[in-house]
Amino acid sequence: MEQFPLTAKKSPADRTLVNIGALTVGEGFTVIAGPCAVESREQIMSAARAVRAAGAQMLRGGAFKTRTSPYTFQGLGEEGLRLLRDAGDAVGLPTVTEVTDAGKVALTAAYADVLQIGARNMQNTALLQEAGRAGKPVILKRGFYATVEEWLLAAEYVMAAGCGDLILCERGIRTFDRDTRNTLDLGAVAAVKMLTHLPVIVDPSHATGRADLVCPMALSAVMAGADGLMIEVHPTPDAALSDEEQQLSPESFARLMGDIEKTVEFKRSLDG
Amino acid sequence: MEQFPLTAKKSPADRTLVNIGALTVGEGFTVIAGPCAVESREQIMSAARAVRAAGAQMLRGGAFKTRTSPYTFQGLGEEGLRLLRDAGDAVGLPTVTEVTDAGKVALTAAYADVLQIGARNMQNTALLQEAGRAGKPVILKRGFYATVEEWLLAAEYVMAAGCGDLILCERGIRTFDRDTRNTLDLGAVAAVKMLTHLPVIVDPSHATGRADLVCPMALSAVMAGADGLMIEVHPTPDAALSDEEQQLSPESFARLMGDIEKTVEFKRSLDG
Amino acid sequence: MEQFPLTAKKSPADRTLVNIGALTVGEGFTVIAGPCAVESREQIMSAARAVRAAGAQMLRGGAFKTRTSPYTFQGLGEEGLRLLRDAGDAVGLPTVTEVTDAGKVALTAAYADVLQIGARNMQNTALLQEAGRAGKPVILKRGFYATVEEWLLAAEYVMAAGCGDLILCERGIRTFDRDTRNTLDLGAVAAVKMLTHLPVIVDPSHATGRADLVCPMALSAVMAGADGLMIEVHPTPDAALSDEEQQLSPESFARLMGDIEKTVEFKRSLDG
Amino acid sequence: MEQFPLTAKKSPADRTLVNIGALTVGEGFTVIAGPCAVESREQIMSAARAVRAAGAQMLRGGAFKTRTSPYTFQGLGEEGLRLLRDAGDAVGLPTVTEVTDAGKVALTAAYADVLQIGARNMQNTALLQEAGRAGKPVILKRGFYATVEEWLLAAEYVMAAGCGDLILCERGIRTFDRDTRNTLDLGAVAAVKMLTHLPVIVDPSHATGRADLVCPMALSAVMAGADGLMIEVHPTPDAALSDEEQQLSPESFARLMGDIEKTVEFKRSLDG
Repeated sequence: MEQFPLTAKKSPADRTLVNIGALTVGEGFTVIAGPCAVESREQIMSAARAVRAAGAQMLRGGAFKTRTSPYTFQGLGEEGLRLLRDAGDAVGLPTVTEVTDAGKVALTAAYADVLQIGARNMQNTALLQEAGRAGKPVILKRGFYATVEEWLLAAEYVMAAGCGDLILCERGIRTFDRDTRNTLDLGAVAAVKMLTHLPVIVDPSHATGRADLVCPMALSAVMAGADGLMIEVHPTPDAALSDEEQQLSPESFARLMGDIEKTVEFKRSLDG
Repeated sequence: MEQFPLTAKKSPADRTLVNIGALTVGEGFTVIAGPCAVESREQIMSAARAVRAAGAQMLRGGAFKTRTSPYTFQGLGEEGLRLLRDAGDAVGLPTVTEVTDAGKVALTAAYADVLQIGARNMQNTALLQEAGRAGKPVILKRGFYATVEEWLLAAEYVMAAGCGDLILCERGIRTFDRDTRNTLDLGAVAAVKMLTHLPVIVDPSHATGRADLVCPMALSAVMAGADGLMIEVHPTPDAALSDEEQQLSPESFARLMGDIEKTVEFKRSLDG
Repeated sequence: MEQFPLTAKKSPADRTLVNIGALTVGEGFTVIAGPCAVESREQIMSAARAVRAAGAQMLRGGAFKTRTSPYTFQGLGEEGLRLLRDAGDAVGLPTVTEVTDAGKVALTAAYADVLQIGARNMQNTALLQEAGRAGKPVILKRGFYATVEEWLLAAEYVMAAGCGDLILCERGIRTFDRDTRNTLDLGAVAAVKMLTHLPVIVDPSHATGRADLVCPMALSAVMAGADGLMIEVHPTPDAALSDEEQQLSPESFARLMGDIEKTVEFKRSLDG
Repeated sequence: MEQFPLTAKKSPADRTLVNIGALTVGEGFTVIAGPCAVESREQIMSAARAVRAAGAQMLRGGAFKTRTSPYTFQGLGEEGLRLLRDAGDAVGLPTVTEVTDAGKVALTAAYADVLQIGARNMQNTALLQEAGRAGKPVILKRGFYATVEEWLLAAEYVMAAGCGDLILCERGIRTFDRDTRNTLDLGAVAAVKMLTHLPVIVDPSHATGRADLVCPMALSAVMAGADGLMIEVHPTPDAALSDEEQQLSPESFARLMGDIEKTVEFKRSLDG
């Protein structure tokens, strides 16, 4: 496969470490967790405490949601950004949230530690460039319609705009199969790791759309060589305003974190 | 298939007519033509004269291009908008151009008669909403990754923002098959026409990516019930800065226009 | 795209005419019609009379059905072959039926004028070879999972086994989109006609899975350059034992045949 | 997702153990290895010794190959069956080989311990039924075009014909993405394990088509809950007559087996 100027590995050992406060992504293994959307102060505080207690290193939560339908919950907007910031500060975790429009980059960057570009916006070049100029680390999700080459070219847009602290995130692709929400493409994770020096994480929640598949896919992702995971956790999944089928309860997440930690340690011993 | 509040047909005969100056889309058959990108004053003037002479009713040309790679031609920006405007005025055709970012809607609307939202931005909700508020007709391309339901829901975003003058455009979907650039989905054209009152046009240039397939697919689209076509025409296709394989020469386009006109007339007699 | 030794056009005008009794496929336009499955003597006789009266030139009907589930109707087997033969003889139409296993080729060839290889068996090489040796014309459906190249290579298997009288049939491909049963790929029809001398027909019934889309897609297929159509017609579609949503009633089919004939005539005038 | 009468789990702990001589699939973890095709006595003997030495529990090798093109190596036929049998006997491993046609089931069953039905034949119902009647365990690969539901229904055909000793094998699905040969669908492995009592194994060689991805995907498959792996190993991969890019050398396979064994043990401790 072709490589591109800014994302390509210069040597087999070439790897970028992304520093986010005291956290370094690309070294060790990073788990980002939190609800699909910030819904209220109580909800995000509760989620923050739970994911912190279970060992997650970053808090996620959506304030601007890009939903398929205009008639579903669209997020709390700036109030959501503020609540996420407060929750992260309260538990001592850096935060990441999705930015869905170039015009919202500055506002979002004023609140969040890391900017996330979602799958539907992977080829929104105005957003890629504006996010790349914001002076914050960026997580770039793979479009559910995108080849690995197109994903790397989207990353080139972000890096060419000035962002060196970029993290790639595989979250499943759209196929004929509808047994799962998307088809998690772990082969692409292993393949892209050979091409680029950037850290690559996996989102098993969106990839599968089913809470019962998040655990096996999270552990599979560790063995595929992922540098981290992004997992949806909600204090009360059944009451969630979006993605209710795929969010883990705090209890399930705590159990999963135990398994993830053991698997990461096992993988490290295997790699020697 | 489900229907949605703003896009749904109220009765089998319910249809929206979109007025653009003296032109009415949804009545008769509308052909929009022009180059992939505005490249220079001479190029767009030459293209405008050619498509006008052949009988096209609207001029297209890209000023802001969303390209897969940041290292390819990105369009002339505002200068491209100005040149397109001048060319349209010179030959007496309304113009349509793609807007790729919510922040560019006002600028683009100041120059163009119709705003186009491209396939990669079909779920860029900030853009959908801003374009819907601009007071101009909008052409909404189907994402190459989108179901008909998702396409209609994207249209709901535009209409909910205030735009009643919306035109849908099928331009091919991404499948396992790579014999053509995309797979033109004429079944979806016939299916969506049963669901919505909005006009539906077809872009055989992007759908096939091959100039030699544009002609048969254009005529097939007429028989599938399309309300119009959007076709890429370049004065010198071999020298085009983008999409060189799929743009028609003025001579080929003129021949095709003759066939389209006859086919539209035949279709009318058949339906009549 | 690559071409292959037996299927490739030797010159732009190179075309194979397949003779089936008094009928010549590849010259003029051929409509094959009949029920998904032969269900009873009355049903197939009624269907045969109806499609004959409407102007179809060949009768289809399945005796051995390859169903997704073993718990659905699997066809009448040899009794179905006999009933189809009798119905074809009674109305004076040649017959085509699907053969699903190399071991059934001789039996099927003893009854039918043309052997059909279905989409699910496009890469059943034992069947391709056995059918190619049977001394009968063959219709080879494109697998719903197959590229044009793989389709042509499957045709090479049949021709290499000795069959020169081969007809290709596009019947839709499987994509992420489920608005229609499959996605009819008319671009592939136009593309494959440029590569091969073999006649290419279209099956809009399986491609769309919806009776209301069969008519527009049939006419679109004519304009895409197809040499014929295969259409499912059942005396009483609502009572059909399989594919009930996509079979036309005799009345609908008769109306469609009128439109097809006019469209074929129009296409000829356009090409002429 | 729907469940079906013969394949459905009766209770969460319901699982079928498939006995093949002294080997039990569905208990512990089973690795099947060997070349894509049997090419010569020396080649298969060399492969058999290598995979045995590395710890594989079953020997694979193709005698009847279903190739896309009729102009590529089609396998040694019955001579290949005999050589595989001899090699298995020589090293004391049971053997599995693909049967590609209902007419070859008896012949193949006379030589092999396990019959494999390949992805292209997953809906070849005559073959499914004949293999189900052969009195031998069967491995049923998922079609690269098949949903989990269709895969289970194909399994119902085999079981309804009398075969209780059935093993399912995921080997990648066809998607728009061509970075890997197919897209390995580990989510489907975890999902199907919840639905059926049958053992489920994974073929990372066909799924990825790249030897450098076989290792990470094999370990990921263990964590996804697979009951075994089928891996292509060739004494001299560069000289292989088919699938040369994806076959492992004996040295690579031996290293991988060490990692697989440790991962299986780790997984057991995690589950335990």
